[in-house]
Amino acid sequence: MTVFTQIEGGGVTSALGFKAAGIHAGFRKEPERRDLALVVADEPCAAAGTFTKNIFCSAPVIISREHLSDGGTGAPSYGTARAVVVNSGIANAATGVPGLEHAREMARITADAVGCTDEEVLVASTGVIGQHLPLDPFKTGVPQALAEASREGGASAARAIMTTDTHPKEYAVSFSGDELGFDGVTFTVGGMSKGSGMIMPNMATMIAIVTTDAPIAAAHLSQILRDAVGVSFNKITVDSDTSTNDTCVTLASGAAAPGAAPIEPGTPAYRALAAAYKEVCTNLARMMAADGEGATRLVTVHVAGAATDADADAAARTIANSPLVKTAIYGHDANWGRIAAAAGRSGAAFRQEDVSIDIMGMPVCRGGLTVAFDEDEALRRFEAPEIAIDVNLGAGTCETTMWTCDFSHDYVTINGDYRT
Amino acid sequence: MTVFTQIEGGGVTSALGFKAAGIHAGFRKEPERRDLALVVADEPCAAAGTFTKNIFCSAPVIISREHLSDGGTGAPSYGTARAVVVNSGIANAATGVPGLEHAREMARITADAVGCTDEEVLVASTGVIGQHLPLDPFKTGVPQALAEASREGGASAARAIMTTDTHPKEYAVSFSGDELGFDGVTFTVGGMSKGSGMIMPNMATMIAIVTTDAPIAAAHLSQILRDAVGVSFNKITVDSDTSTNDTCVTLASGAAAPGAAPIEPGTPAYRALAAAYKEVCTNLARMMAADGEGATRLVTVHVAGAATDADADAAARTIANSPLVKTAIYGHDANWGRIAAAAGRSGAAFRQEDVSIDIMGMPVCRGGLTVAFDEDEALRRFEAPEIAIDVNLGAGTCETTMWTCDFSHDYVTINGDYRT
Repeated sequence: MTVFTQIEGGGVTSALGFKAAGIHAGFRKEPERRDLALVVADEPCAAAGTFTKNIFCSAPVIISREHLSDGGTGAPSYGTARAVVVNSGIANAATGVPGLEHAREMARITADAVGCTDEEVLVASTGVIGQHLPLDPFKTGVPQALAEASREGGASAARAIMTTDTHPKEYAVSFSGDELGFDGVTFTVGGMSKGSGMIMPNMATMIAIVTTDAPIAAAHLSQILRDAVGVSFNKITVDSDTSTNDTCVTLASGAAAPGAAPIEPGTPAYRALAAAYKEVCTNLARMMAADGEGATRLVTVHVAGAATDADADAAARTIANSPLVKTAIYGHDANWGRIAAAAGRSGAAFRQEDVSIDIMGMPVCRGGLTVAFDEDEALRRFEAPEIAIDVNLGAGTCETTMWTCDFSHDYVTINGDYRT
Repeated sequence: MTVFTQIEGGGVTSALGFKAAGIHAGFRKEPERRDLALVVADEPCAAAGTFTKNIFCSAPVIISREHLSDGGTGAPSYGTARAVVVNSGIANAATGVPGLEHAREMARITADAVGCTDEEVLVASTGVIGQHLPLDPFKTGVPQALAEASREGGASAARAIMTTDTHPKEYAVSFSGDELGFDGVTFTVGGMSKGSGMIMPNMATMIAIVTTDAPIAAAHLSQILRDAVGVSFNKITVDSDTSTNDTCVTLASGAAAPGAAPIEPGTPAYRALAAAYKEVCTNLARMMAADGEGATRLVTVHVAGAATDADADAAARTIANSPLVKTAIYGHDANWGRIAAAAGRSGAAFRQEDVSIDIMGMPVCRGGLTVAFDEDEALRRFEAPEIAIDVNLGAGTCETTMWTCDFSHDYVTINGDYRT
């Protein structure tokens, strides 16, 4: 079992070989708000990405997919990349043919500044949909961001991709290559993300950018990314909506072990790197759920005893998406009936008499029936920042964990009033 | 095309052969709140029902299904019934074996009072789950309700089944049997329903009871009911949750045409009766959506141009369930991006460049792109009690209509504070 060391203040530039910056380029009116992030590698990197499956996907999603098409035009997407450029404020979604040209131009401007091919630039946008993306802020902003980019620039980049997020989200870990075939080498995986409504089609999106200095081929990096996304970003939900612009990309520089042979699947180093990606992505995902719009609590839904992985996911997802469950938690109500009813309509196979439910570690349902619990103790436990819901369906051995947040008056205020 | 006449103040006792009453029996603490409804037929009736598919279904759902098992143990459920008894305040869900016994006893007490078999009584409960149902209120309440039951009692029965509903829901129509093979006969279909969160597992449920005086066999009545439910109660959603207790039952007395041969499928009379059921159920369903918890607007989502019926339903349902769409309407924001993004993630097949969207009759999206509209005019139209969303996916000829409501601060208040 590899030991991971969390890097204090670490993020997308913690791994060797990467620089970043976040600046105000002019997509937003407020001059104090950063709205352009640039992550640039010293050398071309192995790269991979996962993207929204929404039919109304944005232009930058289409272009980034094109640029990562070494594996063909479908998923998985991987290839080579040197830079990632992101703007916030305008999503460049529902913008038709001009939108595609703007996303291509965004890559071209960045490629010219960095000195790489257009295809080596990945692009992402987040913000209002249906508006055209101006190019002038890139023409002035990208050279400025490149000039400012540094190994300390991760924090400013993380800030530049924010929309309704209340704080930037960064996480990084390192681990030793000793006993993994890389004696004396320290590997790092770090990243940043944004997203608080899951989706905001209107100010769209979750975006995550993860970097590592481990040496690995793009096709294998793609597998590691997909496995990590499957247990992290794909397991969070704020309001059941998924975005037109969701984008998660990763770059691997290999700079921690220059000249070393790349990490191969099936090796201890691969397993350690895959676990590090899960660690980073899971922590970023939890931060996103906890920062859900209007959220006052992070909610962790753990479903065990499912007959299949799909059943575990269906039950956990239905519980995590239930407005009734989420408003109950907001109201500090250990209301297991709403949890049971959500599981019951999820499509997962089980019998009600086999179900156990704990809320915040307190048994509230056994054998499908109410268990008396101390209401005062429940109210005390509701003061914690994280609320655990544990459901055992009693139908098998599969399990999963999903993260969401509670549903507050502020969610309605934020989303009822956003555009006006 | 049969002409239907809406019966002013009509409801579950508009059809010949039915009496009803709603009284305070003691399930609720407040003496002024009616909490027991009884609908009783003069003679045994053809009967049919549809019930929740939630695994955590309540005891009365299980017992009513048993009592309507002439078609076998699965769906469809039909048979013979004489009375329907409903209590509000306690759902008798998640109550195990004792709960089943209480539901059976509820039927037995009613059967003894009415003078029929236990199997001829259908039962339904709505209210808090996980609590045991007391029997004493039935022992005193059912005889009292039977004594009070009258052809004018539909309104009090409709009031007795309410939980968070802000007003009772009743609807009835009549139509002439002339030219349908029943010269000089007037047929009536009427009903009542409750439900405003869709579901409230906690005070669970949608309940609908529809009666008719047309003569028809139970198996055919079952088909008519299922067809009507498919375009009405199954097309409304308040918060995507479905209940442990959802119940819709219907009784046909034949009293409008005593001694006549029953209406057979394929005849004009059958088509007219089926259309009358759709008319009554659709109007009850719209009332329920408009009375969604915290709702300020009824929202009608019409999806056309879908490749399949399933695609039309998926797109309409995803739009109608989207918290972002519903909060936008609450905020009077003609935000088509949220509608498009919901359709895009619904699983329905289409291309974004083929999509048209109108909100309140105003074109806001054509060919997947923004259409400029008059914001002041939009704000004026948002004053209407019903907001129409029309989406054409441009992918085929299938269509559907779904009803929901907007998502307000009051929804959070009602559901965050309910149990406390």
